[in-house]
Amino acid sequence: MSKTPTSGHPQKLWGGRFAESTSALVERFSESVSFDARLYRQDIRGSQAHARMLAKIGVLSDADARAIVEGLEGILADIEAGRFQWKRELEDVHMNIEAELTARIGDAGKRLHTGRSRNDQVATDMRLYVRDVIDALIPLIDRVAEALLDLAEREADTVMPGFTHLQIAQPVTFGHHMLAWREQILRDKSRLLDCRKRMNVLPLGAAALAGTVYPIDRHFVAEQLGFDGVTENSLDAVSDRDYAIEFCAAASLILVHLSRWSEELILWATPLFGFVDLPDRFCTGSSIMPQKKNPDVPELVRGKAGRVIGNLTALLVLMKGQPLAYNRDNQEDKPPLFDTVDTVTICLEVYAEMIPHIVVNRDNCRAAAARGFSTATDLADYLVKKGLPFRDAHHAVGSAVAYAAQKNCDLAALTLDELKRFSPLIEADVYTYITLEGSLAARNHYGATAPAQVRAAIARARKRT
Amino acid sequence: MSKTPTSGHPQKLWGGRFAESTSALVERFSESVSFDARLYRQDIRGSQAHARMLAKIGVLSDADARAIVEGLEGILADIEAGRFQWKRELEDVHMNIEAELTARIGDAGKRLHTGRSRNDQVATDMRLYVRDVIDALIPLIDRVAEALLDLAEREADTVMPGFTHLQIAQPVTFGHHMLAWREQILRDKSRLLDCRKRMNVLPLGAAALAGTVYPIDRHFVAEQLGFDGVTENSLDAVSDRDYAIEFCAAASLILVHLSRWSEELILWATPLFGFVDLPDRFCTGSSIMPQKKNPDVPELVRGKAGRVIGNLTALLVLMKGQPLAYNRDNQEDKPPLFDTVDTVTICLEVYAEMIPHIVVNRDNCRAAAARGFSTATDLADYLVKKGLPFRDAHHAVGSAVAYAAQKNCDLAALTLDELKRFSPLIEADVYTYITLEGSLAARNHYGATAPAQVRAAIARARKRT
Amino acid sequence: MSKTPTSGHPQKLWGGRFAESTSALVERFSESVSFDARLYRQDIRGSQAHARMLAKIGVLSDADARAIVEGLEGILADIEAGRFQWKRELEDVHMNIEAELTARIGDAGKRLHTGRSRNDQVATDMRLYVRDVIDALIPLIDRVAEALLDLAEREADTVMPGFTHLQIAQPVTFGHHMLAWREQILRDKSRLLDCRKRMNVLPLGAAALAGTVYPIDRHFVAEQLGFDGVTENSLDAVSDRDYAIEFCAAASLILVHLSRWSEELILWATPLFGFVDLPDRFCTGSSIMPQKKNPDVPELVRGKAGRVIGNLTALLVLMKGQPLAYNRDNQEDKPPLFDTVDTVTICLEVYAEMIPHIVVNRDNCRAAAARGFSTATDLADYLVKKGLPFRDAHHAVGSAVAYAAQKNCDLAALTLDELKRFSPLIEADVYTYITLEGSLAARNHYGATAPAQVRAAIARARKRT
Amino acid sequence: MSKTPTSGHPQKLWGGRFAESTSALVERFSESVSFDARLYRQDIRGSQAHARMLAKIGVLSDADARAIVEGLEGILADIEAGRFQWKRELEDVHMNIEAELTARIGDAGKRLHTGRSRNDQVATDMRLYVRDVIDALIPLIDRVAEALLDLAEREADTVMPGFTHLQIAQPVTFGHHMLAWREQILRDKSRLLDCRKRMNVLPLGAAALAGTVYPIDRHFVAEQLGFDGVTENSLDAVSDRDYAIEFCAAASLILVHLSRWSEELILWATPLFGFVDLPDRFCTGSSIMPQKKNPDVPELVRGKAGRVIGNLTALLVLMKGQPLAYNRDNQEDKPPLFDTVDTVTICLEVYAEMIPHIVVNRDNCRAAAARGFSTATDLADYLVKKGLPFRDAHHAVGSAVAYAAQKNCDLAALTLDELKRFSPLIEADVYTYITLEGSLAARNHYGATAPAQVRAAIARARKRT
Repeated sequence: MSKTPTSGHPQKLWGGRFAESTSALVERFSESVSFDARLYRQDIRGSQAHARMLAKIGVLSDADARAIVEGLEGILADIEAGRFQWKRELEDVHMNIEAELTARIGDAGKRLHTGRSRNDQVATDMRLYVRDVIDALIPLIDRVAEALLDLAEREADTVMPGFTHLQIAQPVTFGHHMLAWREQILRDKSRLLDCRKRMNVLPLGAAALAGTVYPIDRHFVAEQLGFDGVTENSLDAVSDRDYAIEFCAAASLILVHLSRWSEELILWATPLFGFVDLPDRFCTGSSIMPQKKNPDVPELVRGKAGRVIGNLTALLVLMKGQPLAYNRDNQEDKPPLFDTVDTVTICLEVYAEMIPHIVVNRDNCRAAAARGFSTATDLADYLVKKGLPFRDAHHAVGSAVAYAAQKNCDLAALTLDELKRFSPLIEADVYTYITLEGSLAARNHYGATAPAQVRAAIARARKRT
Repeated sequence: MSKTPTSGHPQKLWGGRFAESTSALVERFSESVSFDARLYRQDIRGSQAHARMLAKIGVLSDADARAIVEGLEGILADIEAGRFQWKRELEDVHMNIEAELTARIGDAGKRLHTGRSRNDQVATDMRLYVRDVIDALIPLIDRVAEALLDLAEREADTVMPGFTHLQIAQPVTFGHHMLAWREQILRDKSRLLDCRKRMNVLPLGAAALAGTVYPIDRHFVAEQLGFDGVTENSLDAVSDRDYAIEFCAAASLILVHLSRWSEELILWATPLFGFVDLPDRFCTGSSIMPQKKNPDVPELVRGKAGRVIGNLTALLVLMKGQPLAYNRDNQEDKPPLFDTVDTVTICLEVYAEMIPHIVVNRDNCRAAAARGFSTATDLADYLVKKGLPFRDAHHAVGSAVAYAAQKNCDLAALTLDELKRFSPLIEADVYTYITLEGSLAARNHYGATAPAQVRAAIARARKRT
Repeated sequence: MSKTPTSGHPQKLWGGRFAESTSALVERFSESVSFDARLYRQDIRGSQAHARMLAKIGVLSDADARAIVEGLEGILADIEAGRFQWKRELEDVHMNIEAELTARIGDAGKRLHTGRSRNDQVATDMRLYVRDVIDALIPLIDRVAEALLDLAEREADTVMPGFTHLQIAQPVTFGHHMLAWREQILRDKSRLLDCRKRMNVLPLGAAALAGTVYPIDRHFVAEQLGFDGVTENSLDAVSDRDYAIEFCAAASLILVHLSRWSEELILWATPLFGFVDLPDRFCTGSSIMPQKKNPDVPELVRGKAGRVIGNLTALLVLMKGQPLAYNRDNQEDKPPLFDTVDTVTICLEVYAEMIPHIVVNRDNCRAAAARGFSTATDLADYLVKKGLPFRDAHHAVGSAVAYAAQKNCDLAALTLDELKRFSPLIEADVYTYITLEGSLAARNHYGATAPAQVRAAIARARKRT
Repeated sequence: MSKTPTSGHPQKLWGGRFAESTSALVERFSESVSFDARLYRQDIRGSQAHARMLAKIGVLSDADARAIVEGLEGILADIEAGRFQWKRELEDVHMNIEAELTARIGDAGKRLHTGRSRNDQVATDMRLYVRDVIDALIPLIDRVAEALLDLAEREADTVMPGFTHLQIAQPVTFGHHMLAWREQILRDKSRLLDCRKRMNVLPLGAAALAGTVYPIDRHFVAEQLGFDGVTENSLDAVSDRDYAIEFCAAASLILVHLSRWSEELILWATPLFGFVDLPDRFCTGSSIMPQKKNPDVPELVRGKAGRVIGNLTALLVLMKGQPLAYNRDNQEDKPPLFDTVDTVTICLEVYAEMIPHIVVNRDNCRAAAARGFSTATDLADYLVKKGLPFRDAHHAVGSAVAYAAQKNCDLAALTLDELKRFSPLIEADVYTYITLEGSLAARNHYGATAPAQVRAAIARARKRT
């Protein structure tokens, strides 16, 4: 750490009034280039649009603007080729790129920052970045949704137990279950699209917080960068992080959904359920137990839900109670956001890759559905159709179940005489209602589990896509 | 606690297969009527629509349906008049109302539950409730936004320091600052409306999880209850709590915003700032210090941000890793949601009532803006216009500020000779650029702080409303 | 809302400098007596100790002190008998009690507040309260731990599958598993005791924030109230909420543990596991599916984990970034804390009541342990003892398992010739190592699952208690 | 991604039963060496102790044990010299080191894993790591506490306003305020020490979950590694992450405290307060506003509170509802823990470096204390001493303050005649009580703000250290 007083701080671009250098510890503490370098593409695109606008309004010469745009293009190429040297002492992605630009093209580089500030520059970069992220996530979600649709079609007739309270409730089809997953992820997609729509306005022009003295044309910049409009208020523009929080909230719901799928896959893969097999390449073994085949991918996804929820909490805590306009606290918006982006992306990727290869053990699914009196509701509904009020039917079947449980047999295995003890309304036709197929087929309305309805739902989904 | 085995559990509507009563402790532990009674209106409207539909498809007689609808109307009136006796042993709002209905109209009451389950019933009630809440919050937000607009208009010319890092940065107008707040709350409104749109589909018909054996007409029910459509999948319909989480995420952002306003009001009301006075009726005093006038309302609002963020966390944790379909855990969605609704509502109410009465101490605001070299940027911009690259201008002004700080005077108080030491480009016209009014007026583009722009923004807002 | 200006605010004890009444909305918004009334006992004990001290140092007359102590005792009796009228317009528990005291005993009541402030008064009440809560939770945890010890003893020999990744890993005993739960809750107890020790110092005497001008004897008050000492710094004393957060963090871990137990009970109670039965009185049924017996108690406990974690988040957010000393935000510490206290208490109560009645289905546990090649590790260890490096043994057994899985039989069902294909080191004695009992008995060291070790662990625990 | 089926998975140490390689995506998704490599020292120390124990009980030959210990020592040296090649395909720190060991010393390397599993190995590494972290944080906290003590001594007589509700409340000394900060951080230290004590037991020997078939001597290993004992239960040992959560909860409180200090420094550094100057090297400037000197270090610290609280949330969510024993989710305990460790460490470091250089502007502090009627309480206390009940005195002074506020002067500037209007008890001696020094000196008891008490507190602290 250099404590030597110098006349100004030559390395830092804001060093004019400063009497001593930044402490080495403080430099390490406050730098952001180690994580915000990932914004390089957005930073460059934003700077190019800004330069073009400055030329358009006559603040930059055309030659300067051209030099800037081309210089930045060269830097972009070098970064993508891994030839760019990031320097921590230049603090952040913006200063690294601007310093290199000036080294390459001279004074024109110094003129780029006219009419803007790092505050609105980073705000612009971040919005471009989140927009790019959403644009990359949407097709990934579509891939997952499509994979679920295919799997649903493959298993549209596969009987499995539907659970409530993890008790066997009523038979459903595996395909129906996959369509439930699909509904969840489609809502997630819809939330991302709403977030994109709301955030897609240009903050550039807010400058530090109050706007700039140059007659800038913000709508021109917005158009170049694909924004739908410009922010209405400069103080708000540099201090707003709503879009990052909204994105992280949507991402948290994605992880909540993926963690629910994961919980189910982990359950279904335990030998005591045995409903599915996951391909070996999505599993790992044990260093000590040679027989183990562990569902690591769903377990890790389930675990990563915590991380993404924690990131959302971090951002909310970060912004709580901050006065306007920009505070340095805001630099801390990036690590939780970036970690969320990486996590939600790879979790969707592994699911997109894994879903088509889930092997359903149909016999095990069916055998499980046959246990636990899963058609008891059907017996109650039978009695209602014969005229009993539902609450009375429920009570009668409850008693029948208690009786069958003691005999350790299923309802369908009781004799007609035995069944009649619980209600004189029961007749021989009852046996056609209390089979698995009978139960499934009877739930035959919009959104229900009858294979015909599952196929109809698939058809509707295919048409919509 | 009664441990006496009984043949079935007479009081509970699912008691048929049970050999002993619920423990008294467990009854106290698992009841929900103490908090879900607030859903009574939604529960009754949902049941009435269900009854009408059952009559339409011929499952209920018209007489039964009429008895149900009217019986429920009477119960609704009694609840609203405070004449209804809620019973904890009847567990929840649904059973309390249904039991009372049956007591009043007999067997028809028992038939109401045909073709539905508590799982889809509570899902319906909750969606209706959240929709009603959003519909009540929107006009409240509009009131707040309108109050901000009025205050912005009143103070469109009031100079105050704009802060970054809580350091004085550049002059802004008080009106501009109020418009920044308004932008925040309008985004919050937009999020609530998106949430409403996404959630406004009917889950009824999912029954327990798989649909029902009755030929129900879900679209008829949806239409009666003002839903835009019906849920696509029964398993999803009873297990989805996305809308509650999305609502709580939107509410968390509202509280983040209100806590930011509160932080600012608390700062502005401290005698060391002295920018605003809050009316006495929004303040309290000290039990020991007779001179104190404390900004309790903003402090409490700031504190309540924690609570609402905590509720969001609670809901995310609740859903994480839950297998389909319904689990009893989900009952725990209500306390955090209800507390969020109450908190966000009253916080908006107190702000709506307080904003019009905020007294701005214009002299103090102006005096503060005149400190801290708030027009240094203007001097730099002046040099840029004279041809200096921005980075060089920045450095020159930094040195001038350091010099003035040592002399303990403002930039405008330096002589031309002194100023020229930092750049030979400075001439006599500089003094017209570095006044507060000069600085404000120069920031004259869309979204910037010039009073003309603030008035233009207000005019745009008034037109849009 | 009364806007009528009055000369001072007669009802409020800080009303001297105020020109208008508190808004009715603000009164509703800012009152706390609806939730802090539960501190009445601590408030009264603290006031009595304060009055005695004021008499001891001569600031109060003995007669006044006696009147106060006795007056408060009467109020305490009335509150506990439900005869006390709480008034919202008196804001909080402190003012309600003090106003009533003054109404009962006259001017002496007004003198009680000498040398203290509500800031240190509420800080004292809260510490007394949290201490009382911990003192009530410790015996409850002991009851749970004792119940687990009894259950462990009852099932010390019961073979069940031990799981990793929810795959069957190695046989363990049910008793061993219960002892694992016990370790968790004992750490929780230890955390509560550490919290109690750290927080048990008296803040009274800090007054508003700076101490008081009276020659108070803080150590005398501390001794009377059972504190181990006094706080060192008055600013810290009125602003510290560490103990509430530390308590809520400890409570969150309790709920994390109880939610893990709950997850296991829910798994074990599903018919596909069938390891345990929960007594009917801890379960409920379905309004539609007559056969259902749902493990509601563990489900609700699992769900309540979210709430307690959310409360911890709320408190951390509340305190983040607060300047010293007291801010009104702090009033918001109570709802999350109180909700945490209530939740952790009732969850421990229901577990204490339920654990002794968990019925273990030993046959199902054993049958499950026999599946999934749970003794594969034992075969590998056998080969290591015969001289093979562990990694090679692991690989050989892995191949054997793959072979047996294809034949759909257990390892012990392979012939010696078949086994020898995977390693020539395997001999006839192998079969004694790869039974369930052989596997269990072989894990015979401190902390391991051999029944002998489980019994030894129980014996150690009984001795320690 | 290689989908080529191979006979086993040669690279992975658990590959025996696997028919195909891990997907490249899954490998990237599930690897942990990119973050758990930082456990190398703990992993190696643990392995060396394990090897020595295996030799002691005769399971390893002395030569093998020696080869292992020395081989690992060489690897340790290579890692610390930056000469070690970490390989992602080897998954984690354990496999990287073990594979390298075997490459270096042959079959002895393969024998190292005898009698343990990765589950208890990582549990051991993690406890050693958290213990090392705490042992590094304690002296850092001591440095911070010592710096605060020095600053408190330097400013023991400096008058500043004490705030409640950010309103000026009563005069305090700057030294007293610094001692309040010190109390906070000392409680944090005490929490870390409690955490260390509770976690310092050896989990090794739990093996995968049930213990091992070797006659291991766990107490011997514990002693070598500096543990106070061994874990009591193998299932608990591999699944317990309490210590990580407890550590992160303690760390969250540290950041809550540092964020509170930061909030105050940011306030005190704004020109409108002007209480302190921070050295330039802890500040940065603006890219656009040349006059700015921003308190970046406290702002970033305040921002980082969100991150650490988010990490705590992440860990709680991670563990919620997990069944025993080990699940792969647990791998996700490391990123939040490691990030918390890094964040809390560097935040304490920058504070330790910054505190000694905080420059207090004593004149500004004093001038602020003279505003806001900060001695109004003293006037009330004066009246109480003259015999008025406190509540009446409070009311009289409140009226006097209202009067002075209208005259825009301080209480001490009112004439005796004016003062007497509010109470006839006021006499000429009143002016000695309502000066700043009089107010300070009067608060002269244990823990209060009188300079004499501040010095006494410093003396007690120096003696204790």
